[in-house]
Amino acid sequence: MRKYLFSGKLSVIACLLLCVVLSGCAPEVRRFGSVIALKGEKRELYNKLHADPWPEVVGKLQECNIRNYSIYQGELEKGKWYLFSYFEYTGQDLDADMKSLADDPKTQEWWKLTDPCQIRIPGTPEGQQWLSMKEVYHSK
Amino acid sequence: MRKYLFSGKLSVIACLLLCVVLSGCAPEVRRFGSVIALKGEKRELYNKLHADPWPEVVGKLQECNIRNYSIYQGELEKGKWYLFSYFEYTGQDLDADMKSLADDPKTQEWWKLTDPCQIRIPGTPEGQQWLSMKEVYHSK
Repeated sequence: MRKYLFSGKLSVIACLLLCVVLSGCAPEVRRFGSVIALKGEKRELYNKLHADPWPEVVGKLQECNIRNYSIYQGELEKGKWYLFSYFEYTGQDLDADMKSLADDPKTQEWWKLTDPCQIRIPGTPEGQQWLSMKEVYHSK
Repeated sequence: MRKYLFSGKLSVIACLLLCVVLSGCAPEVRRFGSVIALKGEKRELYNKLHADPWPEVVGKLQECNIRNYSIYQGELEKGKWYLFSYFEYTGQDLDADMKSLADDPKTQEWWKLTDPCQIRIPGTPEGQQWLSMKEVYHSK
């Protein structure tokens, strides 16, 4: 009987320890907010593409440790449309993952359709499509 | 020996079942992206406030089921600053929680400082400070 109880308890303790270890292993998350302008006449095309994105492109984002990725659209002044993006990066090497994404042929093909819909914000660094924004507040 | 193994297995199964149940109980998340303009001359004050937000205000957001709340800032045209916010709502009654937030005296006090830093976007519905944006893409 004693052995019975002990083995049950041991398993529960092992399970709890596993939970603690696993939660401790949760990847560190880095958040990114970016912005770009959207050509009004390309809005319909842009939204259509994103309503039914290519599985290879979505899969590549996953592979490159990009999670919880949203794009929002708003008209900030009459006829002036903008896109805001938010995503979380859970990998260990952002530069390597961004390079892998940029080198992916299917992603390049996708960008050939989406880039012409957008207008880069003045001041966006060379070789970058979206302008990174400063995070001024975050609460969990 | 058989009893020993069985009790151990049973505990592991119970633990796994508990994990499944707990993960199934994870609240449904609704995501919100919003935008507002920021007066350039108030930028410093706005950032200072948000770098050290009042604990009561942060606590009230938590109480109202607002999670993973970020505010980003960007200069979209020369001298034209905007704020982009992203948050996740994990509650069951958004209207009630938003009313509770709006009725909170400390939050009202906070908004008395932050509202004058902002310029509402044309077309923002009456009684709303930030303009809600359309989510055109999301991937997990």
